[in-house]
Amino acid sequence: MFENIERTDISSLGEFGLINHLTKNIKLTRSSTIKGAGDDAAVLDFSGKKMLISTDLLLEGIHFDLAYTPLKHLGYKSVQVNLSDIYAMNGTASQITVSLGLSSKFPIEAVEEIYSGILLACDKYKVDLVGGDTSSSKQGLVISVTSIGYADEADICYRNTAGEGDLICVSGDLGGAYMGLQLLEREKAIYLENPQIQPDLEGKDYIIERQLKPEARKDIVELLQDLNIRPTSMIDVSDGLSSEVIHICTQSDKGCNLYEDKLPIDPMTYDTAREFNLDPTVCALSGGEDYELLFTIKQADYDKIKNNMDISIIGHITEKSAGMNIISKSQISHPLKAQGWNSLK
Amino acid sequence: MFENIERTDISSLGEFGLINHLTKNIKLTRSSTIKGAGDDAAVLDFSGKKMLISTDLLLEGIHFDLAYTPLKHLGYKSVQVNLSDIYAMNGTASQITVSLGLSSKFPIEAVEEIYSGILLACDKYKVDLVGGDTSSSKQGLVISVTSIGYADEADICYRNTAGEGDLICVSGDLGGAYMGLQLLEREKAIYLENPQIQPDLEGKDYIIERQLKPEARKDIVELLQDLNIRPTSMIDVSDGLSSEVIHICTQSDKGCNLYEDKLPIDPMTYDTAREFNLDPTVCALSGGEDYELLFTIKQADYDKIKNNMDISIIGHITEKSAGMNIISKSQISHPLKAQGWNSLK
Repeated sequence: MFENIERTDISSLGEFGLINHLTKNIKLTRSSTIKGAGDDAAVLDFSGKKMLISTDLLLEGIHFDLAYTPLKHLGYKSVQVNLSDIYAMNGTASQITVSLGLSSKFPIEAVEEIYSGILLACDKYKVDLVGGDTSSSKQGLVISVTSIGYADEADICYRNTAGEGDLICVSGDLGGAYMGLQLLEREKAIYLENPQIQPDLEGKDYIIERQLKPEARKDIVELLQDLNIRPTSMIDVSDGLSSEVIHICTQSDKGCNLYEDKLPIDPMTYDTAREFNLDPTVCALSGGEDYELLFTIKQADYDKIKNNMDISIIGHITEKSAGMNIISKSQISHPLKAQGWNSLK
Repeated sequence: MFENIERTDISSLGEFGLINHLTKNIKLTRSSTIKGAGDDAAVLDFSGKKMLISTDLLLEGIHFDLAYTPLKHLGYKSVQVNLSDIYAMNGTASQITVSLGLSSKFPIEAVEEIYSGILLACDKYKVDLVGGDTSSSKQGLVISVTSIGYADEADICYRNTAGEGDLICVSGDLGGAYMGLQLLEREKAIYLENPQIQPDLEGKDYIIERQLKPEARKDIVELLQDLNIRPTSMIDVSDGLSSEVIHICTQSDKGCNLYEDKLPIDPMTYDTAREFNLDPTVCALSGGEDYELLFTIKQADYDKIKNNMDISIIGHITEKSAGMNIISKSQISHPLKAQGWNSLK
């Protein structure tokens, strides 16, 4: 796995040595960061704003496969996955903490790679890394990220506040991360069977990147502010569109109609799904890991958003008794089912 | 391991079912908790106060051994370990998030046990559980806790602010958690060799409890406030006294003299150490996991604290060039070494 990097055993540094080694490159840029790593706790200041907290646990063999996941990408993705939750509250992400559990197979250079991805994400998204914990692991790589953000109370978007008649919108396109995963899994299987065969991922950069290096949609939160749109509800698409729409409808005590022909699917996702004999619509509905933002807006806001290439209006909220449905291209209504990626199965 | 409890497979509930099942007993009592679990992020409000954030990762086989750790105790301890860091900043802990990685050997009833310990700690320490993440794990049990607290800026105690001449104080007694661990490890080894022999832990309740069910010293933070003492620096004793004293001295650019005869050691810790042919002083200096508070105070505060049975004055801060030393009972000065529990070895 680490054939191309130098090997220095972590135990040669010890825990505090490793922490010092990793944290010396951390730059703090947020005025709300009073004290970062290096004490019992970080100290933050958000006078007047509401604070947002979110946390995610990523485990080797469940959430990522090191056979095809570059460590720097993994560090980057671990942060994105978590920031995405802060943006899904319509907030600004400002700090993160990162805990790592490292098995003995990881030399210091491998941990540096993970950290370089983490710090790249911090730099790009303007968040401060303010603390964490580092431990050996008997089992495999464990990454736990907690992110902290803030928002004015009036701006915060919950899941349970969608209103009847609201338009259902989603950013970007869907199903790409899932198809990237299928492709990587296929090439891994081929490689394991015959290590002479090189992975064939040519021309598939977009969906591979959707899987390995997703970007949380901070830009969409900023766009909505610029357009003067306050979503009536919002959630990020981590488990799959169906699952997220169902969360919003259930928690808001509403129903919905989604339209199959409105789902944004990139041509590469579409073609790759067909190549795998998968239904592109199912991939878009249930694929997961897209980290796009799903949100509802009032109909009055339609004109502000209708020409934006990066946002698709995919349906509308109905009364609860109408149920949660997807209308197929042939105009047939099907009940929406959550078949999202489930980390407990 | 779980012979006495019913077994319901977690996969019968799925991730969201499990989260709903576990979170339905959560009571929120903090006025600063605007929104707890159930959205992308928790929403908190601390207008005017500085926020404190700390995080810990606990891994099976590294930080705990399920052979002798009851799951409820484990849940309780996971929270204490983390709250201790907030108290070590002289702050008030107010919220936590908890992420669990669960291997398939854990039935729902086992997870309920862990959660009941977590919620007991929350109830006793008046903190709200406001979010988390739940996943299956291929490796073993993973627990990641992040705690959030607050303090007035003037009250926050860092590690790097000890002054020359300050008195070094520690709460409670030291080395007990380590001796409890030695005892549990010995009985486990005997049991593995001969399962007919029942563990002999009689009369050892105190040190067993120090290991399995530590209490973070919220009461000491409150006591210091009542006594009108603001420590000049503070840290919690997680890795061992030596290691923590060295952190304070190094970060404060100072030296210290500790006095062996001032170290608070419980008679049961002392006797058990002798029984194991261990030096009780070494256990107190390097044992770790005591979760007591180590702090420095100005000499002017001596009279306020001198008669308190729960706080020991164990030495004083010197200039850096004098080095970090421990003066033995025979009045010989030895350089202080950090031989604390190291999770990377």
